[in-house]
Amino acid sequence: MNACIFCKIIKKEIPADFIYEDEYISAFLDIHPTNIGHTLVVPKKHYENFISTTDDIAQKIILTIKKIAPKILKAVYANACNISTNNGKESGQIVEHAHFHIIPRFSNDNFIHWQGKPQTETEIKETAEKIRKVIKDN
Amino acid sequence: MNACIFCKIIKKEIPADFIYEDEYISAFLDIHPTNIGHTLVVPKKHYENFISTTDDIAQKIILTIKKIAPKILKAVYANACNISTNNGKESGQIVEHAHFHIIPRFSNDNFIHWQGKPQTETEIKETAEKIRKVIKDN
Repeated sequence: MNACIFCKIIKKEIPADFIYEDEYISAFLDIHPTNIGHTLVVPKKHYENFISTTDDIAQKIILTIKKIAPKILKAVYANACNISTNNGKESGQIVEHAHFHIIPRFSNDNFIHWQGKPQTETEIKETAEKIRKVIKDN
Repeated sequence: MNACIFCKIIKKEIPADFIYEDEYISAFLDIHPTNIGHTLVVPKKHYENFISTTDDIAQKIILTIKKIAPKILKAVYANACNISTNNGKESGQIVEHAHFHIIPRFSNDNFIHWQGKPQTETEIKETAEKIRKVIKDN
């Protein structure tokens, strides 16, 4: 994946502000932070998105997040954070290398949150039935 | 945690549209979906938020997400999704029982995304230094 910007960052071919690194995982600050301390947690090996990682790598990512998120919050004096990964273009994924965001949050920080699309109880029940059918059939 | 709505859902004391369940994890549809198929993945045991779960439970949650997210997307004909957990009131966490959201996404679905707060390169470097110091000192 020569063209992947995260692969280049991981290999130190282009600079980034690393805060954590081990054999499998790198964590560095987002260059377009949503808030101070906005961190990206990234597997060193290239996977297109989080869902396409191996179970082992997914577990390593999540344990790294659990380990470093409280330290990030402490460093920026935050009490809360969003932990989030976007899978696929329509979800807002920009770099096609699996990554989780850790975004420290503050009271009234004007971070724009999710806009709900109300569904009726019947619509929700129908959706649940469709999902259960796919899970059962696969 | 008698007052916890998710504990009551998990114990089937109040109804929900379940799509998956095993010994440790429940998954059911959000009653206020951001999009069709908006699913909550929840440990059966009560933890205040994801960061406060045990490593073992965190891994079980994430493997469940990896397993069911592709089926949810298939069922609602989506190609993308956000996978996200809010930790703490300021992050938008409403129910104080650890839960991950799986939110299917579509082109132009008008889901409002993150609003960045630009920081200078110097500010980002200073933040990285603060976080590295906390990680080192702990």
